[in-house]
Amino acid sequence: MHIDLNCDVGESFGRYRLGHDEAVMEFATSISVACGFHAGDAGTMRRTVAAAVARGVAIGAHPGYPDLQGFGRREMKLSAEEIGDVVIYQVGALNAFVGAAGGRLQHVKLHGALYNTAARSEPVAEAAVAAVARLPGRLIIVGPPGSQLAAAAARHGLPFAAEVFADRTYAPDGQLTPRDTAGAFIADAEQAARRMVQLLREGTVEATDGSRLALRADTICLHGDAPNALAFARGLAQALEGAGVKRQALGATINQA
Amino acid sequence: MHIDLNCDVGESFGRYRLGHDEAVMEFATSISVACGFHAGDAGTMRRTVAAAVARGVAIGAHPGYPDLQGFGRREMKLSAEEIGDVVIYQVGALNAFVGAAGGRLQHVKLHGALYNTAARSEPVAEAAVAAVARLPGRLIIVGPPGSQLAAAAARHGLPFAAEVFADRTYAPDGQLTPRDTAGAFIADAEQAARRMVQLLREGTVEATDGSRLALRADTICLHGDAPNALAFARGLAQALEGAGVKRQALGATINQA
Amino acid sequence: MHIDLNCDVGESFGRYRLGHDEAVMEFATSISVACGFHAGDAGTMRRTVAAAVARGVAIGAHPGYPDLQGFGRREMKLSAEEIGDVVIYQVGALNAFVGAAGGRLQHVKLHGALYNTAARSEPVAEAAVAAVARLPGRLIIVGPPGSQLAAAAARHGLPFAAEVFADRTYAPDGQLTPRDTAGAFIADAEQAARRMVQLLREGTVEATDGSRLALRADTICLHGDAPNALAFARGLAQALEGAGVKRQALGATINQA
Amino acid sequence: MHIDLNCDVGESFGRYRLGHDEAVMEFATSISVACGFHAGDAGTMRRTVAAAVARGVAIGAHPGYPDLQGFGRREMKLSAEEIGDVVIYQVGALNAFVGAAGGRLQHVKLHGALYNTAARSEPVAEAAVAAVARLPGRLIIVGPPGSQLAAAAARHGLPFAAEVFADRTYAPDGQLTPRDTAGAFIADAEQAARRMVQLLREGTVEATDGSRLALRADTICLHGDAPNALAFARGLAQALEGAGVKRQALGATINQA
Repeated sequence: MHIDLNCDVGESFGRYRLGHDEAVMEFATSISVACGFHAGDAGTMRRTVAAAVARGVAIGAHPGYPDLQGFGRREMKLSAEEIGDVVIYQVGALNAFVGAAGGRLQHVKLHGALYNTAARSEPVAEAAVAAVARLPGRLIIVGPPGSQLAAAAARHGLPFAAEVFADRTYAPDGQLTPRDTAGAFIADAEQAARRMVQLLREGTVEATDGSRLALRADTICLHGDAPNALAFARGLAQALEGAGVKRQALGATINQA
Repeated sequence: MHIDLNCDVGESFGRYRLGHDEAVMEFATSISVACGFHAGDAGTMRRTVAAAVARGVAIGAHPGYPDLQGFGRREMKLSAEEIGDVVIYQVGALNAFVGAAGGRLQHVKLHGALYNTAARSEPVAEAAVAAVARLPGRLIIVGPPGSQLAAAAARHGLPFAAEVFADRTYAPDGQLTPRDTAGAFIADAEQAARRMVQLLREGTVEATDGSRLALRADTICLHGDAPNALAFARGLAQALEGAGVKRQALGATINQA
Repeated sequence: MHIDLNCDVGESFGRYRLGHDEAVMEFATSISVACGFHAGDAGTMRRTVAAAVARGVAIGAHPGYPDLQGFGRREMKLSAEEIGDVVIYQVGALNAFVGAAGGRLQHVKLHGALYNTAARSEPVAEAAVAAVARLPGRLIIVGPPGSQLAAAAARHGLPFAAEVFADRTYAPDGQLTPRDTAGAFIADAEQAARRMVQLLREGTVEATDGSRLALRADTICLHGDAPNALAFARGLAQALEGAGVKRQALGATINQA
Repeated sequence: MHIDLNCDVGESFGRYRLGHDEAVMEFATSISVACGFHAGDAGTMRRTVAAAVARGVAIGAHPGYPDLQGFGRREMKLSAEEIGDVVIYQVGALNAFVGAAGGRLQHVKLHGALYNTAARSEPVAEAAVAAVARLPGRLIIVGPPGSQLAAAAARHGLPFAAEVFADRTYAPDGQLTPRDTAGAFIADAEQAARRMVQLLREGTVEATDGSRLALRADTICLHGDAPNALAFARGLAQALEGAGVKRQALGATINQA
């Protein structure tokens, strides 16, 4: 049994600091690096990539809406063409830093509102994934299991990695419980780890109504900026290790044939 | 005898149009594409690259200061590290569009105030060229003959292309006559062409004091946005052809060994 | 009979020019000036305000979404608080230029996607109008007749001016025919003028199904950037004059008690 | 004896937090609020202004270069016209929030590289102060004692407040010891307070060579974001109180006749 742990990093901007990037890289096997549109800047990208290369952590691009003020969390009505364009631009910018550091880009994970919209909207997912398909390297698309991102990746022959959240609960239909709902979050790392171990062993997780939900899981998202993020990541990593689950970056395991 | 004609293009932004990019590509053998910091945006980059690839025009990146409001023409005091970072970011973003369109990036030409500062400042030139040297493809550095950019390219083992201006006059020391000086510009395409033909034949151009100035010239800059830009470009191209000078992109002629 | 003619101006940005601001001010009695978020910049605002003050044209603020790349035409999901904040910021910035030029701000007209969303969304209209109500001067709210903007202005005791479009057709329910529908536009200035004169005389305009639509009209929007914008504005102004309709800025006619 | 304590606040942006604004307002009698160009955003401005009005802390605008990435600390070559424009824009935007909160703007203090450049450059100081002079309310200009900002304020008939730094040392010529020089900073709040009390009592401070430097001091700058900023502010405030120095906002004491 193996699993990838991924974390969104590189979200500092200019004088503004965010997250504990280097600390979380002790636990993450993959990182998704902000590309300067919703967060991050060129210097932060360079430093983040260097830290990941030094630690052997796999690197992905984390493109978002062009909205630094809203941290990419405000839905914007971009045309399909515009979505493809901002994805190529951001992935390309990050890729240059990865290449300059002697690394190789592993995946693309959309950020925030763009991730959520692409997960449920066929045209948005299509626009984003078609753009990634035009880039070299058969990049892995990371998204929610069963989402439009998964379908688009399949259409374009790109590998897809299903992302689950250890600190969130799921409705019986496989959707994340909305953030503002009671019981949406799981604060206890041990409980979270137990759920993840079950998910990896049996392919199911307990939904909010108590039913067993079948869910594909290729990578677990760690949060790098919550107050207890590091303790949670450490607890989860230890529990997985205790259960005999090996942490391994996506690139080694996702079928890229 | 051969020469490259290059033009700065892709300077539109959102709803704002600038330049006559497709028209000037009839004459240009190389273009330098704005990368979204001082001008240009992701969609403009995609469209500009596609137009160039369709016409067989060679493509370079045209990175500038992060100052859309000032069109990259206002000097900004960036650290050497910051200059390297913004160069890698912008070149990487453009390179993704070039790759996606099936093309190959030929050169990097800095824009506006960054071009001027790097031409005379050793640390700024070093920062920008060292950044380009970390990118794949042995990109050609375009800059003024005898400038700090030429020296930095030599230090880093990158090919260098000396750029001259057909519509500008030169002081005896090889510097361009400042824009706000009388006699700085040459409006007549035929006169400009005669000067360029002499430059290509004899390696000299008449300086403002009447002396003969020895100048290296690998590429001539066409302006895409002046009112008479297209007429000037056409006149120059015809005159060069009449004199037996072949137009040829940099990549075919600059020593890249 | 009297009417205000308003035009959106000040949409240039840095080196990018847009519109024929000074020319259209010959016909407009009110202008709405972009405030730097979706278009315009500080220098453009100063110059536009100066031109209006010199001509005695009344000045309004034209705040939009923070999206220069999308020209404020892409819907963005801002919270009510964020909408109020960006409205106060932009109106305040413009107001400083108006005051410095010895003028007085007359109205606020939202731009693009923000205008459209506020017209139909009660919470968005409420957020924007409540923000304007906190500013001094009892500013007139300009919006579509019968819209949520009209209702919000009434709730906050602010004067409201109903804006109609001379070059657009209306559905029987009072909505503008969507731009991408056949018959959405009226290109002929004389026909447009006849419709506007009827509207001012009888309070009705012919809808797309031939029925008579009752519509309040306090101001007619002129477009400053269409190719035939100036000819259309001139034709409309002349036709109105011929019909005995006096052009007069909103401030003189809208009840501000 | 009385003195103003001022602090730069409102420097958060979107999701990025900076400073301890509310805590420092316990000690500050005046604040200078970032206006969205180098730091701050519309929501942060509203909240910061509301906190100050609630506490009776006097409010000033803190305009900077349009460079969020560089936090306004990178020199930019703006023309005199551009400097005036960005000052009016930013002060106007803040002033709208101040007015909406029922407050009144007290002063303008330039930020970062713009402050430093204006302090020593006559044309830059003139451009910025002339812009402020066009705004209503006879705003106080805050700047270094004896600087070009003081001279410009005098020329324009605007009140001027000399700002000194309690945590910095001064060269015999009245200039601050550069940040990267040994002995530039005074970390001990008691020592800093002793220096400030002497300055207020005798009008002199000990320069780095041991000589007595005569210095005008109307306001002391508190730093809101250093790790020990609050402890330092508290210590300074207590020491001043112990020495019988009353803390009082600029507006009450600077001659505004």
